[in-house]
Amino acid sequence: MGNTFGHLFRITTFGESHGKGVGVIVDGCPPQLALSEDDIQPELDRRRPGQSKIVTPRKEADRVEILSGTFEGKTLGTPIAMVVHNQDQRSEAYTEMATKFRPSHADYTYQEKYGHRAWPGGGRTSARETIGRVAAGAVAKKLLKERFGVEILSYVQQVQKLIAQVNPDKVKLKEVEANIMRCPDAAMAEKMIKLVERVRKQGNSVGGLIGCVARGVPVGWGDPVFDRLEADLAKAMLSLPASKGFDIGSGFDGVTLTGLDHNDEFRSRRGKVRTTTNRSGGVQGGISNGEAIYFRVAFKPTATVLVEQDTIDINHKNTKLKARGRHDPCVLPRAVPMVEAMTALVLIDHALRHQAQCGG
Amino acid sequence: MGNTFGHLFRITTFGESHGKGVGVIVDGCPPQLALSEDDIQPELDRRRPGQSKIVTPRKEADRVEILSGTFEGKTLGTPIAMVVHNQDQRSEAYTEMATKFRPSHADYTYQEKYGHRAWPGGGRTSARETIGRVAAGAVAKKLLKERFGVEILSYVQQVQKLIAQVNPDKVKLKEVEANIMRCPDAAMAEKMIKLVERVRKQGNSVGGLIGCVARGVPVGWGDPVFDRLEADLAKAMLSLPASKGFDIGSGFDGVTLTGLDHNDEFRSRRGKVRTTTNRSGGVQGGISNGEAIYFRVAFKPTATVLVEQDTIDINHKNTKLKARGRHDPCVLPRAVPMVEAMTALVLIDHALRHQAQCGG
Amino acid sequence: MGNTFGHLFRITTFGESHGKGVGVIVDGCPPQLALSEDDIQPELDRRRPGQSKIVTPRKEADRVEILSGTFEGKTLGTPIAMVVHNQDQRSEAYTEMATKFRPSHADYTYQEKYGHRAWPGGGRTSARETIGRVAAGAVAKKLLKERFGVEILSYVQQVQKLIAQVNPDKVKLKEVEANIMRCPDAAMAEKMIKLVERVRKQGNSVGGLIGCVARGVPVGWGDPVFDRLEADLAKAMLSLPASKGFDIGSGFDGVTLTGLDHNDEFRSRRGKVRTTTNRSGGVQGGISNGEAIYFRVAFKPTATVLVEQDTIDINHKNTKLKARGRHDPCVLPRAVPMVEAMTALVLIDHALRHQAQCGG
Amino acid sequence: MGNTFGHLFRITTFGESHGKGVGVIVDGCPPQLALSEDDIQPELDRRRPGQSKIVTPRKEADRVEILSGTFEGKTLGTPIAMVVHNQDQRSEAYTEMATKFRPSHADYTYQEKYGHRAWPGGGRTSARETIGRVAAGAVAKKLLKERFGVEILSYVQQVQKLIAQVNPDKVKLKEVEANIMRCPDAAMAEKMIKLVERVRKQGNSVGGLIGCVARGVPVGWGDPVFDRLEADLAKAMLSLPASKGFDIGSGFDGVTLTGLDHNDEFRSRRGKVRTTTNRSGGVQGGISNGEAIYFRVAFKPTATVLVEQDTIDINHKNTKLKARGRHDPCVLPRAVPMVEAMTALVLIDHALRHQAQCGG
Repeated sequence: MGNTFGHLFRITTFGESHGKGVGVIVDGCPPQLALSEDDIQPELDRRRPGQSKIVTPRKEADRVEILSGTFEGKTLGTPIAMVVHNQDQRSEAYTEMATKFRPSHADYTYQEKYGHRAWPGGGRTSARETIGRVAAGAVAKKLLKERFGVEILSYVQQVQKLIAQVNPDKVKLKEVEANIMRCPDAAMAEKMIKLVERVRKQGNSVGGLIGCVARGVPVGWGDPVFDRLEADLAKAMLSLPASKGFDIGSGFDGVTLTGLDHNDEFRSRRGKVRTTTNRSGGVQGGISNGEAIYFRVAFKPTATVLVEQDTIDINHKNTKLKARGRHDPCVLPRAVPMVEAMTALVLIDHALRHQAQCGG
Repeated sequence: MGNTFGHLFRITTFGESHGKGVGVIVDGCPPQLALSEDDIQPELDRRRPGQSKIVTPRKEADRVEILSGTFEGKTLGTPIAMVVHNQDQRSEAYTEMATKFRPSHADYTYQEKYGHRAWPGGGRTSARETIGRVAAGAVAKKLLKERFGVEILSYVQQVQKLIAQVNPDKVKLKEVEANIMRCPDAAMAEKMIKLVERVRKQGNSVGGLIGCVARGVPVGWGDPVFDRLEADLAKAMLSLPASKGFDIGSGFDGVTLTGLDHNDEFRSRRGKVRTTTNRSGGVQGGISNGEAIYFRVAFKPTATVLVEQDTIDINHKNTKLKARGRHDPCVLPRAVPMVEAMTALVLIDHALRHQAQCGG
Repeated sequence: MGNTFGHLFRITTFGESHGKGVGVIVDGCPPQLALSEDDIQPELDRRRPGQSKIVTPRKEADRVEILSGTFEGKTLGTPIAMVVHNQDQRSEAYTEMATKFRPSHADYTYQEKYGHRAWPGGGRTSARETIGRVAAGAVAKKLLKERFGVEILSYVQQVQKLIAQVNPDKVKLKEVEANIMRCPDAAMAEKMIKLVERVRKQGNSVGGLIGCVARGVPVGWGDPVFDRLEADLAKAMLSLPASKGFDIGSGFDGVTLTGLDHNDEFRSRRGKVRTTTNRSGGVQGGISNGEAIYFRVAFKPTATVLVEQDTIDINHKNTKLKARGRHDPCVLPRAVPMVEAMTALVLIDHALRHQAQCGG
Repeated sequence: MGNTFGHLFRITTFGESHGKGVGVIVDGCPPQLALSEDDIQPELDRRRPGQSKIVTPRKEADRVEILSGTFEGKTLGTPIAMVVHNQDQRSEAYTEMATKFRPSHADYTYQEKYGHRAWPGGGRTSARETIGRVAAGAVAKKLLKERFGVEILSYVQQVQKLIAQVNPDKVKLKEVEANIMRCPDAAMAEKMIKLVERVRKQGNSVGGLIGCVARGVPVGWGDPVFDRLEADLAKAMLSLPASKGFDIGSGFDGVTLTGLDHNDEFRSRRGKVRTTTNRSGGVQGGISNGEAIYFRVAFKPTATVLVEQDTIDINHKNTKLKARGRHDPCVLPRAVPMVEAMTALVLIDHALRHQAQCGG
């Protein structure tokens, strides 16, 4: 029962890595939105393996098909089902995975929880699971843009100790997509790419931070006390594979300030209310305040490394495992569209909730 | 609709700071648990204002009354309603708040969202709202301890730049409660207390980090893909007032490691599976792996400071505001039981979910 | 977890018959609705025992208190908690109930399910549980009337074989409240009252049908495929104590017609679309069509009768039980406000859902 | 957001009649259940058009494909996605439906609610929508049978005024499947079939009642106060296309009895508790009592008749419409598996809920 996200714009995903397909049902999408596969596919292409030399080389076309919910190019208000059929289903390379648990993967916990596990390609624990999220997120992004004027942009902000300079109020999609790292700081992006290439050759991997900003969110979205905007964003981000942390606005760094230094003062200029600083990250008391919403997500280094490690097998005997073949030295560029998708899903849900309770 | 938390052990809270009372309904609590006010009150006392010189001096007894859900000292399996009647309802000290928005508080966003606001004492945005959570959390903690052998412990880990040394595998409740800071590192606690006293005299405030550990959680709790254990914990923590960040296991620090250095290797000893390190923080693929679950929550410095600041009024005119009277220089000691409560609520919910789907 | 009803206008009830109190939290109520106890109390008075010679003589004032969610007489958009403290808590008259199960009551099933039971007054299975529903329903009714122009009216339609003539398009509240039976057919009401008096003297009880109509519902409320308007109404009605059936429009009687005779033809007159008949009962495909929504609810005769019956005790030994003292010969007049309340809760929820997805 | 049903065994359906496909995701199914398309297809075949001379002649193979959630023939505990691709997508026969609303269909309400409508074949309002329910119900039925020993059986009980004699305690699947009417009273089935053939030739249609019984349900399933077993069953049944009523146990007929005559007395025989009668229909206080759960569902006559009728067009102009080609004179035999499916979905959900709260 953990495969549904959202209350009013509600998605349910399905699919294992080497099963027949992966996908999603979107329930609650408003009617009359122009929508076709052409709106979805570009986001999936940003998520796709094999898109550059710094991500996993696995080749998958990941062509999305809309099975329902649209008619003559527009949404019906009925559930939108989207499917991507799996192609690259060779499981031979992985047979050792049938009996041995990869360290810091979910093989062990799935086996213990369910007593049965789709080991080829990691099954449901594979990052292929996020295809459904990204497809649904593409619908949410389009709605947010067309009906609410909201833009969501995410980018690689840090790889290991390499930290990019990014201004969340000004960063542009073009800058993000200008390099394969999806880091809008071009100079730093180059260093990051070199770092990843070096690590890749060692069969090793890196982690880092992804930043995200939502601009144009009006005052009033968010549902205290439990469904605060930042609470739902935190859940959304921590539901992504390999994520280990989230902070919003001043976040972890803000704890070193005093209250006086941290507070965002209000100013009104020509009838428009703004804060002079934005340490709140665009959310106060769980509700958007009209400023840019920005936050960071920490991703651990990918667990698959091409080096022999200690582990146990399915009978709980000690053994060793060395992953072979393809590995993903840096999940960050592909995680960028995932973060955007989850952000869009949170925001559209709260947009509709606000419309329900407060009339828009 | 944002005032309910949990799926199977489901709580709904209510109440404004200066209304008649605050409280909670717990729905889904298993029957036959011994339960009385004596199980709840101690946790509320840990949350209560006025408990020490480093927290807000507001005086409130916060006596809890169980209205339903128990009979002859045991839970019935029916909803448990708990109420704390408000006493300290003088709102004179706050009248300026009726028309002026406190910087970095939720006055502005509530007013804009709902068009109507209980300004005395901050209304629903007051930390009094957490009374219901802590009361419900006390029930959850008792269930977790008695029926599942799970212990939850939270503590102040950092105040501004003062960082305590805490071993999440070994820290004890006695150590946490040994000082008014609720920091188990006694030497550091003393420094923290001095820092807060200094800041308090300046009418200023500090933020910091709270650490939390859950020990004894069996393998298998957590519901991928969206309701991963860490995702629900992140949401729970970011739903707390003043929280700005969450990380689990290696968290934000882990992003500087390589995959090889970060991975937790499995070892089996006398039939018992353990990981040799615990950078995962006790959760892999969204499911508990039997190791200690530990995480951190970042709290910004309290927004109320006794210094004049720029702000706007209810008509969006620029003005100035200086908070008067009592303020809370450091929310951390009182936030410790809140973090424990929310952790308990997440864990008991997943315990019951696991029991539902996988039979216990 | 079964004590919450609704998605966007969501209520959670609590309370046992002889516990400290019963009540409800309403979450999701739009802000700025004028609301005080005076809006709630009249509905509770209609539900109250002891209001006439044909219902249970138990004396209870049932004074409601609003604990939260309003400020200066208007709703805040935050949870509205309402409590009625129990007064008449003498349980002596019932001590036999501690060990013997009343036939066709829920004593046996509660005991077996939960292993523990609040036997005085039936605990949670008492009709006192509906106080929270009626209080929440009063808020919903006010919202529906003021913001959507919807009127809900329910009435006693049948007692045993005595069937009233009621036109759902025209029946008025004044006619319903004109007699203690709440049957708008005055002549039939008189017969019904005599029947109940006769049965009451025998220590026996009767059942019957309650009719309900909602007028002014616009086209478009209802959420196929599962949350059809009639599906949610059916659930709402079958969740009422003692209810055994529900039908809408032509209902059970419509099964004898052919399709041709049953269909409601559309006609447009001066731009307004109507159906020439209304066998659909105002709902087509799960969505309101602008016609009056009308339906019936079957209530079994009250289970408590003052006659000795076979039963078992808590140890599953055969025994006999004769209820003593007060009994309720006819639950129907008091069930009228319950049916209205549940109807209002379903409708307001769908009004808000429609506003969320389709913009109002 | 109305396309999800259930809390712990949760299904979400999708699909329009003439879109690419219809289907369902089942989330929350326990792991390790043997499952393949062979478990699903037979139920879909019972639901399929063209199966006999008394149902719609539309030809559809309705082959189901499981896309996810199983591995090596057993469920994984992950979402089970099932799809049936649409084949018979000729929409020419229906072009008039693009602009004219069929009386007593959902064309008008969908158009008004969503402002956009998949008119070919009725789109989402087509009975094809129930394919997903029946597929999911097949999984639920298998679980109920194998893990809980529960058997669900539904049958045609009445067509117009022809009423079958059926004993819910004894009726067998073989008897139901012995004739194309799915009426276990063989003599009455023959009369029903003749009636339907006569009506079919007139281009007309009939309605009737479907009975359903669940045997082997243990004491304790059901979640008062709102999620009573009968409340969830009522919702499930009224969510089926063309259903207009539901009653359980004595139902509408029980209102003519007195309480004394209606009550089910308890008797204990050799440690086993039974009631001597079962007017409660196996549910007391919303919780199963161990007796057979039986109820009835009223279905109106199918709205499509091959006779000209008054209606309006999409511009709200008065016009006439005569359906052409194939029509379904009696939906009842095909509704039998739908009723079973929805019953199974309700019961398995409550089985898991009981396991969660009360430990099985």
